[in-house]
Amino acid sequence: MEKKEKTIEMLRQVQAGTLSPEQAALQLKLDPFEDLGYAKIDHHRALRQGAAEVIYGQSKPQEQIEGIVKAMEAKGSRNILITRVDQYKAAYLSEKFSMKYEPCARLAVALPQPVEGRGAIVVATGGTSDMGVAEEAAITAETLGNRVTRLYDVGVAGLHRLLRNLETLMQARVVIAVAGMEGALASVVGGLVDCPVIAVPTSVGYGAAFGGVSALLSMLNSCASGVSVVNIDNGFGAGFLASRINQMEGIQ
Amino acid sequence: MEKKEKTIEMLRQVQAGTLSPEQAALQLKLDPFEDLGYAKIDHHRALRQGAAEVIYGQSKPQEQIEGIVKAMEAKGSRNILITRVDQYKAAYLSEKFSMKYEPCARLAVALPQPVEGRGAIVVATGGTSDMGVAEEAAITAETLGNRVTRLYDVGVAGLHRLLRNLETLMQARVVIAVAGMEGALASVVGGLVDCPVIAVPTSVGYGAAFGGVSALLSMLNSCASGVSVVNIDNGFGAGFLASRINQMEGIQ
Amino acid sequence: MEKKEKTIEMLRQVQAGTLSPEQAALQLKLDPFEDLGYAKIDHHRALRQGAAEVIYGQSKPQEQIEGIVKAMEAKGSRNILITRVDQYKAAYLSEKFSMKYEPCARLAVALPQPVEGRGAIVVATGGTSDMGVAEEAAITAETLGNRVTRLYDVGVAGLHRLLRNLETLMQARVVIAVAGMEGALASVVGGLVDCPVIAVPTSVGYGAAFGGVSALLSMLNSCASGVSVVNIDNGFGAGFLASRINQMEGIQ
Amino acid sequence: MEKKEKTIEMLRQVQAGTLSPEQAALQLKLDPFEDLGYAKIDHHRALRQGAAEVIYGQSKPQEQIEGIVKAMEAKGSRNILITRVDQYKAAYLSEKFSMKYEPCARLAVALPQPVEGRGAIVVATGGTSDMGVAEEAAITAETLGNRVTRLYDVGVAGLHRLLRNLETLMQARVVIAVAGMEGALASVVGGLVDCPVIAVPTSVGYGAAFGGVSALLSMLNSCASGVSVVNIDNGFGAGFLASRINQMEGIQ
Amino acid sequence: MEKKEKTIEMLRQVQAGTLSPEQAALQLKLDPFEDLGYAKIDHHRALRQGAAEVIYGQSKPQEQIEGIVKAMEAKGSRNILITRVDQYKAAYLSEKFSMKYEPCARLAVALPQPVEGRGAIVVATGGTSDMGVAEEAAITAETLGNRVTRLYDVGVAGLHRLLRNLETLMQARVVIAVAGMEGALASVVGGLVDCPVIAVPTSVGYGAAFGGVSALLSMLNSCASGVSVVNIDNGFGAGFLASRINQMEGIQ
Amino acid sequence: MEKKEKTIEMLRQVQAGTLSPEQAALQLKLDPFEDLGYAKIDHHRALRQGAAEVIYGQSKPQEQIEGIVKAMEAKGSRNILITRVDQYKAAYLSEKFSMKYEPCARLAVALPQPVEGRGAIVVATGGTSDMGVAEEAAITAETLGNRVTRLYDVGVAGLHRLLRNLETLMQARVVIAVAGMEGALASVVGGLVDCPVIAVPTSVGYGAAFGGVSALLSMLNSCASGVSVVNIDNGFGAGFLASRINQMEGIQ
Amino acid sequence: MEKKEKTIEMLRQVQAGTLSPEQAALQLKLDPFEDLGYAKIDHHRALRQGAAEVIYGQSKPQEQIEGIVKAMEAKGSRNILITRVDQYKAAYLSEKFSMKYEPCARLAVALPQPVEGRGAIVVATGGTSDMGVAEEAAITAETLGNRVTRLYDVGVAGLHRLLRNLETLMQARVVIAVAGMEGALASVVGGLVDCPVIAVPTSVGYGAAFGGVSALLSMLNSCASGVSVVNIDNGFGAGFLASRINQMEGIQ
Amino acid sequence: MEKKEKTIEMLRQVQAGTLSPEQAALQLKLDPFEDLGYAKIDHHRALRQGAAEVIYGQSKPQEQIEGIVKAMEAKGSRNILITRVDQYKAAYLSEKFSMKYEPCARLAVALPQPVEGRGAIVVATGGTSDMGVAEEAAITAETLGNRVTRLYDVGVAGLHRLLRNLETLMQARVVIAVAGMEGALASVVGGLVDCPVIAVPTSVGYGAAFGGVSALLSMLNSCASGVSVVNIDNGFGAGFLASRINQMEGIQ
Repeated sequence: MEKKEKTIEMLRQVQAGTLSPEQAALQLKLDPFEDLGYAKIDHHRALRQGAAEVIYGQSKPQEQIEGIVKAMEAKGSRNILITRVDQYKAAYLSEKFSMKYEPCARLAVALPQPVEGRGAIVVATGGTSDMGVAEEAAITAETLGNRVTRLYDVGVAGLHRLLRNLETLMQARVVIAVAGMEGALASVVGGLVDCPVIAVPTSVGYGAAFGGVSALLSMLNSCASGVSVVNIDNGFGAGFLASRINQMEGIQ
Repeated sequence: MEKKEKTIEMLRQVQAGTLSPEQAALQLKLDPFEDLGYAKIDHHRALRQGAAEVIYGQSKPQEQIEGIVKAMEAKGSRNILITRVDQYKAAYLSEKFSMKYEPCARLAVALPQPVEGRGAIVVATGGTSDMGVAEEAAITAETLGNRVTRLYDVGVAGLHRLLRNLETLMQARVVIAVAGMEGALASVVGGLVDCPVIAVPTSVGYGAAFGGVSALLSMLNSCASGVSVVNIDNGFGAGFLASRINQMEGIQ
Repeated sequence: MEKKEKTIEMLRQVQAGTLSPEQAALQLKLDPFEDLGYAKIDHHRALRQGAAEVIYGQSKPQEQIEGIVKAMEAKGSRNILITRVDQYKAAYLSEKFSMKYEPCARLAVALPQPVEGRGAIVVATGGTSDMGVAEEAAITAETLGNRVTRLYDVGVAGLHRLLRNLETLMQARVVIAVAGMEGALASVVGGLVDCPVIAVPTSVGYGAAFGGVSALLSMLNSCASGVSVVNIDNGFGAGFLASRINQMEGIQ
Repeated sequence: MEKKEKTIEMLRQVQAGTLSPEQAALQLKLDPFEDLGYAKIDHHRALRQGAAEVIYGQSKPQEQIEGIVKAMEAKGSRNILITRVDQYKAAYLSEKFSMKYEPCARLAVALPQPVEGRGAIVVATGGTSDMGVAEEAAITAETLGNRVTRLYDVGVAGLHRLLRNLETLMQARVVIAVAGMEGALASVVGGLVDCPVIAVPTSVGYGAAFGGVSALLSMLNSCASGVSVVNIDNGFGAGFLASRINQMEGIQ
Repeated sequence: MEKKEKTIEMLRQVQAGTLSPEQAALQLKLDPFEDLGYAKIDHHRALRQGAAEVIYGQSKPQEQIEGIVKAMEAKGSRNILITRVDQYKAAYLSEKFSMKYEPCARLAVALPQPVEGRGAIVVATGGTSDMGVAEEAAITAETLGNRVTRLYDVGVAGLHRLLRNLETLMQARVVIAVAGMEGALASVVGGLVDCPVIAVPTSVGYGAAFGGVSALLSMLNSCASGVSVVNIDNGFGAGFLASRINQMEGIQ
Repeated sequence: MEKKEKTIEMLRQVQAGTLSPEQAALQLKLDPFEDLGYAKIDHHRALRQGAAEVIYGQSKPQEQIEGIVKAMEAKGSRNILITRVDQYKAAYLSEKFSMKYEPCARLAVALPQPVEGRGAIVVATGGTSDMGVAEEAAITAETLGNRVTRLYDVGVAGLHRLLRNLETLMQARVVIAVAGMEGALASVVGGLVDCPVIAVPTSVGYGAAFGGVSALLSMLNSCASGVSVVNIDNGFGAGFLASRINQMEGIQ
Repeated sequence: MEKKEKTIEMLRQVQAGTLSPEQAALQLKLDPFEDLGYAKIDHHRALRQGAAEVIYGQSKPQEQIEGIVKAMEAKGSRNILITRVDQYKAAYLSEKFSMKYEPCARLAVALPQPVEGRGAIVVATGGTSDMGVAEEAAITAETLGNRVTRLYDVGVAGLHRLLRNLETLMQARVVIAVAGMEGALASVVGGLVDCPVIAVPTSVGYGAAFGGVSALLSMLNSCASGVSVVNIDNGFGAGFLASRINQMEGIQ
Repeated sequence: MEKKEKTIEMLRQVQAGTLSPEQAALQLKLDPFEDLGYAKIDHHRALRQGAAEVIYGQSKPQEQIEGIVKAMEAKGSRNILITRVDQYKAAYLSEKFSMKYEPCARLAVALPQPVEGRGAIVVATGGTSDMGVAEEAAITAETLGNRVTRLYDVGVAGLHRLLRNLETLMQARVVIAVAGMEGALASVVGGLVDCPVIAVPTSVGYGAAFGGVSALLSMLNSCASGVSVVNIDNGFGAGFLASRINQMEGIQ
């Protein structure tokens, strides 16, 4: 039932005397955005993306995370992503409920369930030091129901490593390019592939790397079309966006 | 035919004496990347995207642009995008071939042909001053074969303007959020919609806007998931990427 | 009449049959934020502040400004502020309708009407070069119905100039401190007075003034309590905010 | 008694011989600003604001803080704010005198007394991580005699959370908007309400948040009128200024 | 007569009845800082430094400058420095009163009188492009009564040019080191001489010179003791400070 | 003849009475660094590098440039490089003496003489817009006696263009990599070749390119070994350094 | 004896046969700068300034510092300043030789001897947190033989504290103004006094204080003449320079 | 044997039947860049530079480093450089294989073998604190087969220290100038010598040194020709590049 019809229906009930004006006013006020379609979005999201919610773990005490997961579990959620969880919180939480944890990505998946991976996302990194951020992206995408291929340590200073994997890159529906230092990987990959490229600058490097600023600027200035950028070290954001794009339905 | 088979086939011809070693060496050397699939990509691109090429007009003299367009026309190209063309160059060029020109976007379409718009891209701006960059994005996307809806001047300081257009936003397959100053539009839109959001910071503003840096940082730090960012004022890049995403085929 | 009562009243009309459900739905839909109190705010604002609207003139062609003013005039607006209007636009506009124009502030008041100044706002500047921004603040505040006293060129390097005007400063309900270069005026004034101080950094200066950044940082770091800051050169914003504060009603 | 009268009175005593010239000179010299009204301000402040003084705790050893509080207590001060006090100092101090302490805000109130809250200040935050800074603002304002309503975790990426609290926002006399990352909350709130908005950027975030710079720039560039900004993480400053504005008397 | 004695004297006159309390109050009020010694300073300054005042010319219309000079002339001022005067203003002003003008320094001396140069100030520059700023410093110092020696184009990349002038440098009482680009001159000179060195970064250079920032940082980080820095391109400030130091009297 | 011998020889002439002490002192004084070996360097430089001197043209009036060239001509100099000469100065100068001028590089060679190009320097650019800086480097190197190969528009977004020229790159003794925007060319080239790579960031680009800063940071953070960087747009510096390296003699 | 005469004298000895050419050459070569006056400077410095040397303690191991002090002691040095010495090194060193140590300034004076303080240097600070840097300046100046008066916590937000000390300020020969946060103290003091002011920005503050950058920029942009700036937290540099200026002899 | 000949040779073997097409295809595929000349480069490198590989130690666990070294040892590698190894890893590794370790440079040489030093590289530093970075450069160069001379603590504030070593500098084939703070050393050295200068900014300093940014900018803006720059603290990069340049063969 469309929103307009729903509102008229309610007003008809008022007209018919089966709903008092006060009750109708309350209903309009209680959640003024319910009738704007918000709840619908949220249900849609859960159904389609295979993951209900994400918990940003960095600033939350472990007891609070535990509470949220328990509450979500009660509502039937599974495969709950918890980002930026250090090892101590992870040890605590893994005693409270079933949980997979990847230390280098500081990422946990609570109440893990097998998820079928669909489509094709490639996560490429410039060096081995970018692996933590890359894994955050990769596991996020996998947990959201995507098939992920990892191409690590294919930085542009050793071009043959990248070119040896051309076929993998070219079959991707989305590529996540993770690199610190000069961040050139995004441009080179962007020039090779024909799909959207999500660039993730990392804080890897020293000196004039300025904690990821150098890579960030490089990626924003990429001369290759089809490249966009997320925040420094934001592996989760890249994985989430890649999932959205990978799971796009074709135009009807 | 796969690359490996193709190479073995060529070597068999050498073995059989139908190809001399020198000819084979030449073939391997002439274009070492031909057999890596590069040319194939380029053809694929033209066929699928409805536009052969883009000319970055800013640093090129008008005669050079004219020459490139003429050469492309000879090869059958139509709907050629020319970005960052000022009014003087545009006046010159429009006498040399048929051309549509949008002054505020400084964008020209040479040899324009009707293109059917498919899918649904929404281009939203924070203010009227962002319109030039927004039009660059919108016309780029339209020329590449996408249906585009414009929602201009829906900045967050007047939230009702944005919310009045919720339905349009929610039906988009991709949203391009164009904003200068504090760039908050991307976060607000990102929290409302369920599709990829491409944020374009603009150099609109004064003082601590720092030529788009404030908006850029805002957008990179967006607390909404599904948002990625392109360079300041890069309307073309956003339109191009939006087209790629909008035209994704569903997973087979 | 309160919003809640108004909605119930409308629903009662539906119940009573004097308003059809369709008409009620239309009314709710036409302006979905009308019932959230938005329109009320706007009317309230106009009534209380003595000025209906502000037009940001910088990026608008003069014909567009003319059109907006004419439309507002038709609805009864007077004392319309037009900010960042250069001399050429001002010359054009002043032939179309009655208008006061202050060139150094690049500020115009269209359809000017006498406004009674109430309360006490002091606008102080560090040097004579800050006068343009200060006048933008002062005229904005005056047009919005406030009494404004100007203390120009009372920078901290000549402390006696400032101290000679202590009495004026101390009787202010709000002080706007406008300064470029090292921006120390805000801290010194903030330490002297007992009312809110709005600091406006200006782009006056050279070298390490960095277009107002030095003054901005100084003001943000003010060791005096009660100081807040607006954007570089944002005289209008300071004048508008000062008006809001000056016209506060006492706690009931 | 006015200052001018007071000076003449003193001079009359000299004329009358009841005060020697030397005593008069000493009185004029001892505190050259006494007769300029400084002391009056200080008394006025204490009477009106309900709190005598604030101690900046960060750089002071605990024994020094203790000494200051004891000295102030002797002069009758109560409800003394001590900012940026870590847990160790707090533990020490709470054994020396009665004290309330809020760890997440690192804020202590020494010699606490019940204070009646007047007017209406709303403290809103973008996320839960901004709560420490927000509490510093809220407790400061409460201690200074203001009624404070907290709206935490109403960031713009989930607009419905904010809009559900529209009524509370709209009844505020002052709003303090506390946000890190992209800092968009200030603009959105500034567009919704009709009262002064004090924006507090926080150092929450990572990567291109640059320790609060991104939020700071966003807030300075706010496209909403009526917004001003204090230093990054400066909850105390925001609470103090909000108190000043909230307690404004109406224009006589 | 000391300030304290003066005040007691006045109070004695009140005691004696030769001055009424009202007259005494008026005298105390008229210029509250007269009795704090301000005026004394100003006279002292004029007498000792040989120049009464400086006019910052950049933001002042030529008629305003003319008016100030005329007013100062009436009070007997001569050798009035006018900084940052462009050629058009200079042409106008030189018709109104006698004036010396140095175009590359944009510096004028109105009502010039011969001044005897005393002491020894050396103004050294890294390159010929720094000459404008250097001349502003040199002429300022000369007009204020100092003997100035110019060592131009003695940048550190050609160390022999600098070392050839060691004797001159070593006899200086103050050295002003003016340099753009990498600004190394200040450190090298600071290591050679035994007197205060005032470093003036200039905006000369391109690329990573960032308008003088590179030179500014270099000079602030100078590993030589005895070096302090003024604002980028602030030749006047350096010349003025050098004069103050050069004209120091010996400790009594 | 070695320096030590030369000095002893002169002293012997004094001893022998064939040179007076005064003449010897004059000789030592005229150029105090002659006896430190400086002059030897200069002669050596001229002989080996085929160009006597370079004139930095930007800040010099055309008459001054003319004078310097004439003076150098009198001493026998030829092939004098004049950098950053605009078209107007070039037109003036080319009437005064024989001169080659490249407008896009703003570089002139006065009194041009045929120079034999030796060794192998490759100048590569990311895009066509970098050509001005690249030509400054290339012509500088050619005038200094080096053989230069130009590989323009081989940016990393179209990797095949670069790889097609692998052989040329690999035979270089020095590569100059000129690129703006993301500056990735230096890293990719640095990973491919085995010789020193001099990276030149250019100010080409817009938005977050920040006038060459993005490319500069990229290049400084290059993950390829053997890469060093010169100032933004410093084509001359790169060409000069490349010449020094290319003309290295082998270790004896 | 002048250098020229000295050289001729030596050459005359060669001519006379009392000095062999070889010996003369050796003398010219051994220390080419001896005859340029270097050694003379060093002796002069020690005699006049009352302190032989300064040891930068931060990067040196304690044993190395001990060794340097012992060596200097053997040559007769006393009152040796050791900067940036932490408490652990200080404890070690104070067992090895007599030493005064000020922990908050991290400054030690090895082999302390009574020094008569001459002239008048005032060290003023904005807040109590700036005291460490201020003490580094003050003790440095005292050790170098200057009389120092401390005016701490006289920041501009409480102007009466500063003005109460006007007399002290005005009798200074040099003022060192030490302040963090907004750094306004330098400008206010610079406007009050008539002597050179050395501004020392400190890293005190938080948020937009950016580790001293805000104060640094403020001080560089000071609108008061006679102010120059040293590096952030560089108390030693300020004290050393103040000593140089304070001990200037009058012009002969 | 040249690459082209080698490929034709292989193809001839196929033609002759001594190599099957499949084996040839495998050979071409195994390392697709073997036939592009890559492997040749690598062998060439090893032979000429005396060191096979470098391990970036910072982000690798000690067991991983151990594994790599063992694998390389098996292939015959010796003198393997391991950069940025802390003391704990070094202690672990030195028990696993023979290793030299320099703590201040955090640099290890695994499986050390005597290497003959050829040519002439000078490593100069501004201060003793730059020694760690300088040693990283020096040991890298020595391990790669270069003769290295160290000139430490020859900063420009004590020019005589530098000039006393002029002869050493002038005989260098490459100079590495290592300096923090104001980084002036590179310019001064660049003006003295006639060979390539590689400048290494270090993060030594405090305040406005900004972790090496000041030195970096200075070096990029060097007014001396022949200077290029590597990343802050990148001693390894400088040593590696210096080795490449020092070992250049003369032009045939």
